Amino acid sequence: MENTNQLRDILKNKKTFHNNRGMQLENDINLSNQYYVDTKKAFIYKKPTPIKIVKVDYPTKTNKIGNIKIKEAYFESPSTTDYNGLYKGKYIDFEAKETNNKEYFPLENIHPHQINHLKNIYENNGICFLIIRFISYNKTYILFGKDFFDFLNTSKRKSIPIEYFEEKGYLIQEKYSPRLDYLEIVDKYMEVNYGKEK
Amino acid sequence: MENTNQLRDILKNKKTFHNNRGMQLENDINLSNQYYVDTKKAFIYKKPTPIKIVKVDYPTKTNKIGNIKIKEAYFESPSTTDYNGLYKGKYIDFEAKETNNKEYFPLENIHPHQINHLKNIYENNGICFLIIRFISYNKTYILFGKDFFDFLNTSKRKSIPIEYFEEKGYLIQEKYSPRLDYLEIVDKYMEVNYGKEK
Repeated sequence: MENTNQLRDILKNKKTFHNNRGMQLENDINLSNQYYVDTKKAFIYKKPTPIKIVKVDYPTKTNKIGNIKIKEAYFESPSTTDYNGLYKGKYIDFEAKETNNKEYFPLENIHPHQINHLKNIYENNGICFLIIRFISYNKTYILFGKDFFDFLNTSKRKSIPIEYFEEKGYLIQEKYSPRLDYLEIVDKYMEVNYGKEK
Repeated sequence: MENTNQLRDILKNKKTFHNNRGMQLENDINLSNQYYVDTKKAFIYKKPTPIKIVKVDYPTKTNKIGNIKIKEAYFESPSTTDYNGLYKGKYIDFEAKETNNKEYFPLENIHPHQINHLKNIYENNGICFLIIRFISYNKTYILFGKDFFDFLNTSKRKSIPIEYFEEKGYLIQEKYSPRLDYLEIVDKYMEVNYGKEK
C-alpha cells in the first residue's frame, strides 16, 4: 500500500542517492504493522509521502480520479511524523530513522516541525516515541517522548549519543514475525503509565 | 499543507470533473483542524492523498529528495480514512463526504476498505465517525461508528436516508471559528461513553 515501497525502489535505483537511509527500517516497521493489522492487535499506518503537484493531464472520456495523469510533481517534507494509529484504545505516534553513525544519532535527521508535532502529542497525553536504528550494530531502540524531550531540554548537543539510548531507551528484539515487535515495549510503557491493561 | 488545496485547484479547473464533490467540506474541516492545532485543543490531520509514482527524473548535482522530479504518477484509493489524530488522549478517526443527493447518502462514496478500517477502529475502542454534508440543505452531520455499523448490519440499502442522520446523527453547527466545530459533538459523545473529562 501507499508509496513507501515505490519510494524505496526509486532510491534503490540511485545507489548513491541518500544512501538508502531509513529504507530497511521502514520496511521492517511496515511488515510489523501489517502483522498487527492482520492479527487485529493495532491499527498503525505509515502516512503517504506528501507530494506537490505541478502539472496534470485530464482524462477526456472518463470521470475517474485514478485516470488523471500527474505530469510534474515533487516530494515535500511532511508536517507530522510518518506513523500514527490506534493501540488498546490509545493514540500512538512515532517517527523512525536509521543512522550509519556509530556514536550518535544526528538530530538534523528529524524536521523541526516533526519535533514540534511530537511535543504536541506528548503534552496532550498521546503515546509518542522515536524508533532509531544504529545500522553498524543492527540495534534498534525506542526512545519515548519524555526521554526525548528531557534530552532536548537539558542538552545543547545537535545529536543524541548512543549511550543515551542504552540508558533511557529500550532495545527492540528482532523476531521472525512481527519482524520488529515494538508494541511489546509499548505494553511495558502502558503498564507503568496507565496501569495494567485488561 | 499537503496536497488537499492543490487537488481542489486541479478539480476546480475541470468544472465538470467529479462536480467538485467533497472539496468545500474538506476545506471547512481543514480550517477547523488548523484552529484546533493552533489552540492546542486537538491534533487531527488529513493524510496526503496516496499517489502511485511511475516515472521520475533524478537530479544530477544534488542529493535532496525535493529535487527529484516526478514525471508520471496517478492518484490511488486510500486504504484508510482521510483524517485521524489525537483529542484528549483519545484516538480519533473519520471520513468526510458531501453529497448533492437530497434524500440519502450513497454508500458507494466510501471505499469498502475504508469501511473495514472504520470497523477495526470501532471494535478496538477508537472514536470513529462519518461527517456527511447534504449540500442542498447545507446540513452537516456526524454519524458515530456504532450507529453507522448498526445501519450496515440491519439494512440492505446501498444508501443511508437523511432521516437516519436526523434521528441517529448530530447536526454540526457552523461558526465563524472554528468553521465546523465537530469536537463539540465529540465532547458530548465522550461524556456519555467515557465519563466527564477533566
